[in-house]
Amino acid sequence: MFNIALLGAGRIGQVHAVNITQHPETRLYAVVDPNVQNAKALADKYHAGIQTVEAVMSDPAVDAVLIASATDTHADLIELAAKSGKAIFCEKPVHLDIARVRDCLTVVEQQQVPLFIGFNRRYDPQFRRVKTLAAEGRIGKAESLLIISRDPLPPPAEYVRVSGGLFRDMTIHDFDMARFIMGEEPVSVFAQGSNLVDPAIGKEGDIDTAFVVLKFASGAMATIVNSRRSGYGYDQRLELHGAKGVLSAGNIRENAVQQWTDDGCLAAKPEYFFLQRYREAYAAEWSHFVAVLNGRVPPECSGADGERALYLADKAFESLAQGKEIRL
Amino acid sequence: MFNIALLGAGRIGQVHAVNITQHPETRLYAVVDPNVQNAKALADKYHAGIQTVEAVMSDPAVDAVLIASATDTHADLIELAAKSGKAIFCEKPVHLDIARVRDCLTVVEQQQVPLFIGFNRRYDPQFRRVKTLAAEGRIGKAESLLIISRDPLPPPAEYVRVSGGLFRDMTIHDFDMARFIMGEEPVSVFAQGSNLVDPAIGKEGDIDTAFVVLKFASGAMATIVNSRRSGYGYDQRLELHGAKGVLSAGNIRENAVQQWTDDGCLAAKPEYFFLQRYREAYAAEWSHFVAVLNGRVPPECSGADGERALYLADKAFESLAQGKEIRL
Amino acid sequence: MFNIALLGAGRIGQVHAVNITQHPETRLYAVVDPNVQNAKALADKYHAGIQTVEAVMSDPAVDAVLIASATDTHADLIELAAKSGKAIFCEKPVHLDIARVRDCLTVVEQQQVPLFIGFNRRYDPQFRRVKTLAAEGRIGKAESLLIISRDPLPPPAEYVRVSGGLFRDMTIHDFDMARFIMGEEPVSVFAQGSNLVDPAIGKEGDIDTAFVVLKFASGAMATIVNSRRSGYGYDQRLELHGAKGVLSAGNIRENAVQQWTDDGCLAAKPEYFFLQRYREAYAAEWSHFVAVLNGRVPPECSGADGERALYLADKAFESLAQGKEIRL
Amino acid sequence: MFNIALLGAGRIGQVHAVNITQHPETRLYAVVDPNVQNAKALADKYHAGIQTVEAVMSDPAVDAVLIASATDTHADLIELAAKSGKAIFCEKPVHLDIARVRDCLTVVEQQQVPLFIGFNRRYDPQFRRVKTLAAEGRIGKAESLLIISRDPLPPPAEYVRVSGGLFRDMTIHDFDMARFIMGEEPVSVFAQGSNLVDPAIGKEGDIDTAFVVLKFASGAMATIVNSRRSGYGYDQRLELHGAKGVLSAGNIRENAVQQWTDDGCLAAKPEYFFLQRYREAYAAEWSHFVAVLNGRVPPECSGADGERALYLADKAFESLAQGKEIRL
Repeated sequence: MFNIALLGAGRIGQVHAVNITQHPETRLYAVVDPNVQNAKALADKYHAGIQTVEAVMSDPAVDAVLIASATDTHADLIELAAKSGKAIFCEKPVHLDIARVRDCLTVVEQQQVPLFIGFNRRYDPQFRRVKTLAAEGRIGKAESLLIISRDPLPPPAEYVRVSGGLFRDMTIHDFDMARFIMGEEPVSVFAQGSNLVDPAIGKEGDIDTAFVVLKFASGAMATIVNSRRSGYGYDQRLELHGAKGVLSAGNIRENAVQQWTDDGCLAAKPEYFFLQRYREAYAAEWSHFVAVLNGRVPPECSGADGERALYLADKAFESLAQGKEIRL
Repeated sequence: MFNIALLGAGRIGQVHAVNITQHPETRLYAVVDPNVQNAKALADKYHAGIQTVEAVMSDPAVDAVLIASATDTHADLIELAAKSGKAIFCEKPVHLDIARVRDCLTVVEQQQVPLFIGFNRRYDPQFRRVKTLAAEGRIGKAESLLIISRDPLPPPAEYVRVSGGLFRDMTIHDFDMARFIMGEEPVSVFAQGSNLVDPAIGKEGDIDTAFVVLKFASGAMATIVNSRRSGYGYDQRLELHGAKGVLSAGNIRENAVQQWTDDGCLAAKPEYFFLQRYREAYAAEWSHFVAVLNGRVPPECSGADGERALYLADKAFESLAQGKEIRL
Repeated sequence: MFNIALLGAGRIGQVHAVNITQHPETRLYAVVDPNVQNAKALADKYHAGIQTVEAVMSDPAVDAVLIASATDTHADLIELAAKSGKAIFCEKPVHLDIARVRDCLTVVEQQQVPLFIGFNRRYDPQFRRVKTLAAEGRIGKAESLLIISRDPLPPPAEYVRVSGGLFRDMTIHDFDMARFIMGEEPVSVFAQGSNLVDPAIGKEGDIDTAFVVLKFASGAMATIVNSRRSGYGYDQRLELHGAKGVLSAGNIRENAVQQWTDDGCLAAKPEYFFLQRYREAYAAEWSHFVAVLNGRVPPECSGADGERALYLADKAFESLAQGKEIRL
Repeated sequence: MFNIALLGAGRIGQVHAVNITQHPETRLYAVVDPNVQNAKALADKYHAGIQTVEAVMSDPAVDAVLIASATDTHADLIELAAKSGKAIFCEKPVHLDIARVRDCLTVVEQQQVPLFIGFNRRYDPQFRRVKTLAAEGRIGKAESLLIISRDPLPPPAEYVRVSGGLFRDMTIHDFDMARFIMGEEPVSVFAQGSNLVDPAIGKEGDIDTAFVVLKFASGAMATIVNSRRSGYGYDQRLELHGAKGVLSAGNIRENAVQQWTDDGCLAAKPEYFFLQRYREAYAAEWSHFVAVLNGRVPPECSGADGERALYLADKAFESLAQGKEIRL
């Protein structure tokens, strides 16, 4: 049984708390949050303690930390945990500045602790099944990948301001997905985007609608379709076109009821947002992390993966600014 | 917080144990099972005690019992629990003999304890949504109901032998569903059946494939399509045809991945069996039972509902034997 | 090139006129209709002549007649054509009275002319594909068949009055489909029905909503779900359940456009009625009839098939009246 | 009744011959083809004459020409027909060289004859319905468009050699579709492509797989996904994302039959290629052209549209060569 300290008792921390508790090999040992009320509510619910960061790091009973705090604290907490010899599960991203990411990863490497970056979508059963079926040769050699990734509604301007921008905040998941599915590195990136959804996002200097084209060394290509607003729930699909056919992963609908009337056939929308759609993915990534804790596997999704996705986001912004494809 | 004693630590008992534990207002207090190893495994997992039936009934700390033991023990346990003043959640059926059911329900009524019969499908979000949308008038007056209910694979002959036969074991759920969706009582039943799936079932004197036609007082009708084997998972659908259209509840697929190749478009099967398909239904029926415990609502699915479904099953066998419709 | 005389220039006659003209081996030679304006319009459009019934029968240039006139004229016209040595394509039914049908078929047999009865649905590519795939063993032995056959809107009472009643007018297609798909004869029939759609239909002594259960010698069963009104177009589906799976034939939708919005996903209705849905079937049955004219095949759908379907309709009414299953 | 001379009796000419014949206001008057056997076969089938180009142009009975001959003859034939005062329906493209296109259109303008360019997909009921529903405001302001356009199998190298390359031969339809659906002009184009499907295509200096990104003046964007090979039929879809939802046009499947077995649910592929998929579109574009002949409407799809689509194709090749977005 591994003792886990959860750093961050917000929305995503609560999701992880459930999975930590339900997993037979892990226990929620301590909760840390500057908002003491949040920390207490979560700790009480799962019979965990409340600690400070310092206490967690120096407590020999803590086997691993799960970092689900504000983005700008991630790199510091990773370094602290690494130096304290704790295994680390960190929500993406490590940091919005790639130089800071690299410094942080150097510390992790020196300390030789496992670091898992929570690109949750890799653990979505749909996307993983696409990868598995492709690996089994169901559609021959992969030639093009189409990722459609659209949020139900835009975030408030204050969130956008500190988010690092669309490519670092949202598309970063899709960059990681493209690398995960294709199993190779892009050699060029092109990005085009607009501010169409909310003028407040434009005022923050950001875009809310984007198309990205990646090319890989093999000649295969990927395109990413992003929007901060779908109008009908969380639109999370992909298609992998190969030499012999296509594998497609569709949305998960809220229910399986249809109404057939004179107006047509009305069916359910996709599940609303990531907490619903990726429920299974969060549990599955935790299972993977427990296997890492057990020393059975290395982290599938490492600090280097986090760095690479951020690098692609940086280059996408560069492409957008220059109106040309960026060679990597 | 209500203390629950779980009678029966088998497959369905384990499902309930999870829901009891996860519900914020209930605690798994004790587990009872003649198979001590099973009882212990479950009790340990959820930090519950192990008790005998007698101990449970006389323990004032026990607020309610959940009866998930062998079918032939249900009526006796219900009576014991009722006489001990415990609220009762009992898996269907109360008993396979309707006279015994009636005696048992008389005892419950005398003791004035709440009795909930676990017709889980009433809590399936798909079927419930059909009922809700129909009640909202989406398809006008309900005219005909089509229930397709087919198991993935037939049970072993030993199970069939003590099951009460197809109509009492399997169709009983569909009889309850027909009453639930239509909101009125059938006035006649016709049944036709065959032994097509497994000769061993025929040797037990039972059928494994059936069509049932119900007529209601309003003139509305329902038909039930049953088979002990679908060959592709748990086939659980219904269609409610009304004056202005149809509401249909489809199967839940194992995943949302499609393979398009020269062979066609291959998509996922329905979820395999009831533990998967009705996962949400089991949790929802438990929430309802907690509302009953709190005195907020009476049991939606009472002993009388259990009796009525069994009565329809008895009459279906009568129709099958006589080759004619039975007036109720 | 075969010269075809079309008897009846109404809606269905017009469908056939197109197919006769488009087929490379047939020519619309003459049109007959008591409504001279209708006859002329159709004849002019396809450069055909206008004739009387008598002229058609005595004209040696006429190779075959296509009878698409009022139902009560079918048997007389078949006999006339048979005695004149013409090959015969007749819309269902031969007659609503089974004794008259039998007399008529005796004449046809004596004259040894080919008689094809236009059960168009046998030529629907969907239903035919189900039969073909079943014959290829895709789902193992056929065990149960589910036919859903529902019109968009009820006919006027005047039509119902002369229609022979629901089972002879509408279900007759489904009886033929059940025999076609199963490839064996029913040994019993049970029918239940109601007047729910239009009181005017009830006043004519007819029903508008029905469930029928057929049992076959092999123990396989079929059920038919009928309504005179779907509310959303022509609902024409079937499912054939076998030992290893199910083959289902769904509706053809009006288009392939979906609207995803906050209300859900709105898709198109089924095609409105038989002229659209069975467009391809009408052309395919005509191709089959041309093969009959060429002497390459006997009629797949003979007078005996027409008689058998009517017999099942008669027995369904008997079952409805008596409230019991009728042995055949 | 308009007399139509068909220039080109090949595969697409045959499609048009059927539509010309079936339309009540047009007659196939003459067929022209250097392959006399082809010309004769088609002319005989529809009772048309055989003529030379010269004869057609000087025959006052000819109201319009339908140019379905080899691509490199289009511009010359258009000019000839224009100078002869014939209305013109020409298959895309006018010419592969844009300077030649412009010269040709100048001649047409001087002669003031109607010229319709056959971008057939504009008449596909699915795509047109998307445009109509968008115009009705169903999804609010259009923000991004996704066009998936993939052929079943690659053409032979000899075809590729004279095709003008992927963007001029295949993507040109999608460029036109993007302009049609969005109702505005692109201000920039980016293209990326690979030779993945067939090395013989690469040897001809062409690509067979491409992603294109268009940006419009309003900030809206479109992306086009092309491949010369899908492996599963003709993949022709689009999605129009707007402020309130998405309109999607899916593939038309070969049939509506599904096989549910232990392997999953197997459904039909998309219709194989353009002759099937766009059958209705070819008939609808002909109806539009007849309305043009009647003077009721100007050509919806003019020479200028053909020129604009070719211009975008040229610029896409420029983008591909330079690795940057081209401003238009």
